Amino acid sequence: MILIGERINGMFKNIGKAVVEWDPKPLQDCAREQQAAGAHYLDINTGPHAEDQVKTLVWMVEVVQEVTDLPLCLDCTNFDAIEAALKVLKRPGMINSCKCEQEEIDRLFPLAVEYNAAIIGLCMTNKGVPKSAEDRAGFAMELVANADAYGLPLEDLYLDPIVLPVNVAQEHGVEVLEAIRQIKTLSNPAPRTVVGLSNVSQKTPHRPLINRTFAAMAMAAGLDSAILDVSDEPMVDAIATARVILNQDIYCDSYQKVFRQHSS
Amino acid sequence: MILIGERINGMFKNIGKAVVEWDPKPLQDCAREQQAAGAHYLDINTGPHAEDQVKTLVWMVEVVQEVTDLPLCLDCTNFDAIEAALKVLKRPGMINSCKCEQEEIDRLFPLAVEYNAAIIGLCMTNKGVPKSAEDRAGFAMELVANADAYGLPLEDLYLDPIVLPVNVAQEHGVEVLEAIRQIKTLSNPAPRTVVGLSNVSQKTPHRPLINRTFAAMAMAAGLDSAILDVSDEPMVDAIATARVILNQDIYCDSYQKVFRQHSS
Repeated sequence: MILIGERINGMFKNIGKAVVEWDPKPLQDCAREQQAAGAHYLDINTGPHAEDQVKTLVWMVEVVQEVTDLPLCLDCTNFDAIEAALKVLKRPGMINSCKCEQEEIDRLFPLAVEYNAAIIGLCMTNKGVPKSAEDRAGFAMELVANADAYGLPLEDLYLDPIVLPVNVAQEHGVEVLEAIRQIKTLSNPAPRTVVGLSNVSQKTPHRPLINRTFAAMAMAAGLDSAILDVSDEPMVDAIATARVILNQDIYCDSYQKVFRQHSS
Repeated sequence: MILIGERINGMFKNIGKAVVEWDPKPLQDCAREQQAAGAHYLDINTGPHAEDQVKTLVWMVEVVQEVTDLPLCLDCTNFDAIEAALKVLKRPGMINSCKCEQEEIDRLFPLAVEYNAAIIGLCMTNKGVPKSAEDRAGFAMELVANADAYGLPLEDLYLDPIVLPVNVAQEHGVEVLEAIRQIKTLSNPAPRTVVGLSNVSQKTPHRPLINRTFAAMAMAAGLDSAILDVSDEPMVDAIATARVILNQDIYCDSYQKVFRQHSS
C-alpha cells in the first residue's frame, strides 16, 4: 500500500497562509511530519488562494525538496504548473491527475513519459463521475489503452475510481469497491489503483472511523495506494492490519511497528 | 449483518465454572449484556468441562431463555445434545454447525427442517480445512445442493468458509475473503455467509484491531453474519460503518447509535 500524504495542500489553513506569504516553514514542517509518519509520496497542492499557479507550485516543490527525499505528487489542474514543476523535481514524481478526456491525456501522458513520472488517471470525464462500477472500469480501460499507445509503463498508471462522500452519494460506495475489483482484472499484471480516501467522509462527524473502515474494505477489493492523512495513527494501524490479513506483509507480533519503519 | 454473541461458552472461565456448578446467574447476566450490546442471536456452547453434554446444553438453553427473547445458536459437536436442545427452544434457533460430511448432513439437515432452525454449514470435511477459495466454495456448493435436496430453505443455510488465525495460517485470509465472494455467486438469491470472527486473531496481541479490520474486509466481500464479541464497541462501530459504506443502512450522522438500537 503506497501512502500519499495529503497535508501539503493550500486548502488547509496553515498551508494556504504559508503559500500566500511565501513562507517555507509550515510546508517543510509538514513534509518532515508526514515522512516520519510513514508517507511514501507527498502530495503538493497549491490550493485556491495562490495567484500564480505555475510560480507557486514550483516554489512549493523546491522548498519541500530542501527537507525530504520523498517523491512528490503534483496535484494541480493547471497543466502548465504541472509541467514547470516536473522540470524541477529531483526524482521521479507523480502527476495528480488526468481525467479520461483525450485532450488531457494527450497533454499529460507524454509529460509523464518524458519525466519518468507516474500519473493518476481518473475514471471520470468532464461530464462528471459515472454512477456504476462498469462505467468506471470502462474509463479505466480507456486510460490503460492510452498508456499503451503512449508507451507509459503500466506500473506508472494509478487508476482512481473516484470516491465520493458517503453522506451525500451513498450509492457510490459499493460501485467504487466493485470498480476496484474490476480494474484489477483489466490487465496482467494488474493496473494499480488509488483513491482520495478522505473524500469518503467529507462533512461527517466520524471522519477517522469512516476513513479507516473504507480503507480496509477497499484494500480487500484490491486498492494499492491512497492519498490520505498519514498522521491518523488508527488508520495506519488498520492499513498495516489489512496488509497482514491479505498476506502482503508477513505476520509478526510487532507488525504495526514494522510497517511504519518500513514505510518511512 | 447478523451479530451472534459468542460469550455464553464454557471455554470462558466464568461460564465454564457456572456450567460445572449449575449456576444460572453468570449465563443470564451474559445474555442480558449481549442483548443490550446489540446481539441478534446468542451462541450457546457447553465448553469442554461439562460431563453430560445433553443435560448441560438443555439446561443452558432453559436458563438463558428465562431472561431473553433472542434466538439461540446451539454450538455443540454432540448431535444428541443439539436435538434435545432444539426440542426446548422457545423460538426458531440455529444449529452450529455441520461439516460437509454426508453423515452429518443426513443427521442435522432434517433436524433443521423439522425445528424450523437455521444451520451453519462448514466449508470443510473431517479431513480438515481446505487451503483454496475454490475448494471452500466447492464444499459450499455441496451444502447448497443438500439444502435443496432436504427442503431446507436457502435463507436458513449459513455457509462458513472457516477463518483461521492470521499468526499461524496467514495464507488462508485472502482465500477466505475470495471464498465469501464466490459463495455469494452460487445461487440467486445468494446463500448467506457466516464466520467465527475471533478466530482470525487467536493468540495475537492485537485482537480487537485484527477482528474489526477483518470484519470490514469480509463485509466488503459479502459477509452476512458473524459469531463475535458484541461487547467490543469499536468493532460494532466498524460494522455499522461498513454497512453504511455498503449502502445497507441509510447514512445519518448518528448511524452508529441507530445501528445499535436497531440491532438490540
